[in-house]
Amino acid sequence: MPMDLQAGRRSCGVDGAAAAARRVIGALVRAGDISGADMADIADRLNAVADDLEAQAPPLRDRLVNMWRGDGNTRHDPATGPENPIAPPLAYVGRPDGSIESTVTLDLPYQGPPSSVHGGVSALMLDHTLGVANGWAGTSGMTAELTLRYHHLTPLFEPLTVTARQVSVDGRKIRTTGAISANGRPCVTAEGLFIAKYPPRPR
Amino acid sequence: MPMDLQAGRRSCGVDGAAAAARRVIGALVRAGDISGADMADIADRLNAVADDLEAQAPPLRDRLVNMWRGDGNTRHDPATGPENPIAPPLAYVGRPDGSIESTVTLDLPYQGPPSSVHGGVSALMLDHTLGVANGWAGTSGMTAELTLRYHHLTPLFEPLTVTARQVSVDGRKIRTTGAISANGRPCVTAEGLFIAKYPPRPR
Repeated sequence: MPMDLQAGRRSCGVDGAAAAARRVIGALVRAGDISGADMADIADRLNAVADDLEAQAPPLRDRLVNMWRGDGNTRHDPATGPENPIAPPLAYVGRPDGSIESTVTLDLPYQGPPSSVHGGVSALMLDHTLGVANGWAGTSGMTAELTLRYHHLTPLFEPLTVTARQVSVDGRKIRTTGAISANGRPCVTAEGLFIAKYPPRPR
Repeated sequence: MPMDLQAGRRSCGVDGAAAAARRVIGALVRAGDISGADMADIADRLNAVADDLEAQAPPLRDRLVNMWRGDGNTRHDPATGPENPIAPPLAYVGRPDGSIESTVTLDLPYQGPPSSVHGGVSALMLDHTLGVANGWAGTSGMTAELTLRYHHLTPLFEPLTVTARQVSVDGRKIRTTGAISANGRPCVTAEGLFIAKYPPRPR
């Protein structure tokens, strides 16, 4: 049975606020300077939200300990984190054959070439997905080397499939591959070398 | 003389709204679920901003033509775009020796390992920076292959130097290298192969 690899995702709490912030990001990049919106007013309202959040901010050290507790690392990262408005956010299923897969559709904030995904955004999604595939396979590590090959433009506005699978573990060296495909055609492929170590979590 | 490579950046208009959205992103990731802020209220206020922006949104086709006009490609991308809240945003100086350089300090939204920059965010910054170095050198192209080597953890919360330089042009093949350094020590290095072609801009 495929298994949902995500930690609990909610529509309330910080997840709901992050989802709303994601809408704001998309709408701002869509607006540019040709929208009829009053951007000074929009800026004032967003700065007021930031002021209120900053006034209630926990100490950085407390938040670092909190965010790395339990499944915390899957809640705040810039690829899958429901708490992080930068993240699309990717959500994976893990398959019994050892692979993982996510389906995602990206909009203007992730643009590189016209109407296409930025090559660096593809790199971000693949680096993270290879790491999650290592976790699914049972042996995780830190990225030591990552090679990306760009075969075709990766389209915005349509479903992309992001997949990865651990290929081998040789001592501390982990090798993992992945791809981003559109309509069944691989647009970007990745090979990663990971080293089985990880820095300690803040406590 | 070093030269500022950025298109005009403003504190008003959509740039000011995007800067405010960047503050919101940082404050939300800092808050998580241990802030005293009323997240339902924050979500309501952000959704209201998104509603207002979406009600005034230009047609996608119009915005695509607009955003690719003139220096538009440096205004909306997810690495340097002042209009894009996802972008840190990087700002470069171009040097007479052919290299370009940006200094940036990243916060929690860009985290991978604890207190360190996400490897995929480093990949995004380097892919983009290599591309800008090609532009500075006079021959640009699309990324065909990008290899990243991770030597040391890249710290959050302190200034990083992101550099790149075009190494060679052989027919349509462009080779470019770059690095992210902290305190003078390279944390991530990159080698890119670019092909001198580019898809047409929307018109």
